[in-house]
Amino acid sequence: MRNVTKDNITDVFMSYMGPQTPPRLQEVLGSLVKHLHDFAREVNLTHDEWNKGIAFLEAAAEISDEERHEFVLLSDVLGLSSLVDLLHADPNGTSSSVLGPFHISGSPDLAQGGDLRKSFDAPVLLAEGCVKDPDGNPIAGATLDIWQTAPNGLYSSQDPEQTTYSFHGLQTVGADGRYAFTSVRPVEYTVPSDGPVGDILRACGRHPWRPSHLHFVVEAEGYRPLVTEVFPEDDPYLDQDTVFGVREDLVMQYQNMPAGSFPKSGFELSGSVDDAFLKVDFDLTLVPA
Amino acid sequence: MRNVTKDNITDVFMSYMGPQTPPRLQEVLGSLVKHLHDFAREVNLTHDEWNKGIAFLEAAAEISDEERHEFVLLSDVLGLSSLVDLLHADPNGTSSSVLGPFHISGSPDLAQGGDLRKSFDAPVLLAEGCVKDPDGNPIAGATLDIWQTAPNGLYSSQDPEQTTYSFHGLQTVGADGRYAFTSVRPVEYTVPSDGPVGDILRACGRHPWRPSHLHFVVEAEGYRPLVTEVFPEDDPYLDQDTVFGVREDLVMQYQNMPAGSFPKSGFELSGSVDDAFLKVDFDLTLVPA
Repeated sequence: MRNVTKDNITDVFMSYMGPQTPPRLQEVLGSLVKHLHDFAREVNLTHDEWNKGIAFLEAAAEISDEERHEFVLLSDVLGLSSLVDLLHADPNGTSSSVLGPFHISGSPDLAQGGDLRKSFDAPVLLAEGCVKDPDGNPIAGATLDIWQTAPNGLYSSQDPEQTTYSFHGLQTVGADGRYAFTSVRPVEYTVPSDGPVGDILRACGRHPWRPSHLHFVVEAEGYRPLVTEVFPEDDPYLDQDTVFGVREDLVMQYQNMPAGSFPKSGFELSGSVDDAFLKVDFDLTLVPA
Repeated sequence: MRNVTKDNITDVFMSYMGPQTPPRLQEVLGSLVKHLHDFAREVNLTHDEWNKGIAFLEAAAEISDEERHEFVLLSDVLGLSSLVDLLHADPNGTSSSVLGPFHISGSPDLAQGGDLRKSFDAPVLLAEGCVKDPDGNPIAGATLDIWQTAPNGLYSSQDPEQTTYSFHGLQTVGADGRYAFTSVRPVEYTVPSDGPVGDILRACGRHPWRPSHLHFVVEAEGYRPLVTEVFPEDDPYLDQDTVFGVREDLVMQYQNMPAGSFPKSGFELSGSVDDAFLKVDFDLTLVPA
């Protein structure tokens, strides 16, 4: 095509793809480029704006490293990460929600009733529930990879005061499908906003906050892995999570439990908790693979 | 919005933008995100494909540096760079075409009739024409920033054998608006294909070739700057430029000039060219700013 025009360039792009192009690649890349071109035509994108876009990508590249994933963060704050989750959600199971950048592999075993709080001075949170199938039957042997912020709002990898696996644990449920552990109430926190993605948030008058949450990755043989988060209903950022992670069925309640009511057995902390504490009851439903 | 769904997430994104968001930013970012979400919904983008997309951006970041601009290259091979050019083209002037990554500032003056070929052993190309306004009047004092490949297909910045400004020159036209210089026929070349953008080209059965061309940036007070390229009509890649740069009005002809016909005066090489040579006549039309 020796006369490429603004009207035929999308067709020209498609015509360049050879017959050996894998059909799914042709579909995905074709749709992406069609939308990219439609976007440029729709807003009549200027050279100056194109330059700003390239400069944005180069700045995101510059700030990224092994720990900092600015392109993932961009996808998160534009809602793309959550949209991909939502597209593949199964209405018969617990909703999935963003993995986020703070999951780490190799978390230490957390026994039934084990404690993640360790020496942190914050009120005890008792979390428990059942891992079950869509019919309500417990899934014996399911594993829960659990992680959250410390009371200071930081994940272990962000905080020199914490050890690598602080507030990270891996629990295997028994025949009754039940999990149980003690921890502290996680706290709301901001996504990293000192880079180009933060500049976008500021320019749009958006805050960088996420509502507080407990992270779970739940896995069991024969079931689809579930990556999710659970949010308290009284969190100030529940209605404007900057990464669009909140789903109705992931909202839970903190129950205020009176002093002296902490279980007398079954928990690592049994016998040492006299004060009032918080309790969360949250069941997790997996769908067959 | 505590129940984000695949159907409402685009509206939720829009609702996050505050009232102080600049209207043009709201328009551009809103359209970009609407198309990004529509794309994901249209192809039912999977987590695996999302991961590949993030890995692609991180690989493009990794290979980029001061000299290598993989994000610009991505925009080029997807047709976005050319589309932005086309959106702002003025039908009364010469078409614009991609700047590319090989333009450098500060090119040395090239006198009327000056030579870019220097010691390179290749047939002489005589290029000349007029810089004019849409009514055909010459634009006195216009400047032409000219650059091209050496006979080996490399730009100076890619080639340790060439000096920095080899095949780069800046010519100012006189009252008659005419430019004239000698050089060599530029040769077709490939865009860099050893990175993630090259992987896309290969997966789509696309070649990385561009047709050969002479680059010009033409500037004159009171006129819109023109960034363009001129392509010979017999180039094998004219109908499939991998960066979509060819426009009908940018196709030129090499005239085969017989031995002994080289101008007797007006050129730095006058008197030293006895052989046959090539000639290009190409006028450049600027539109008022």
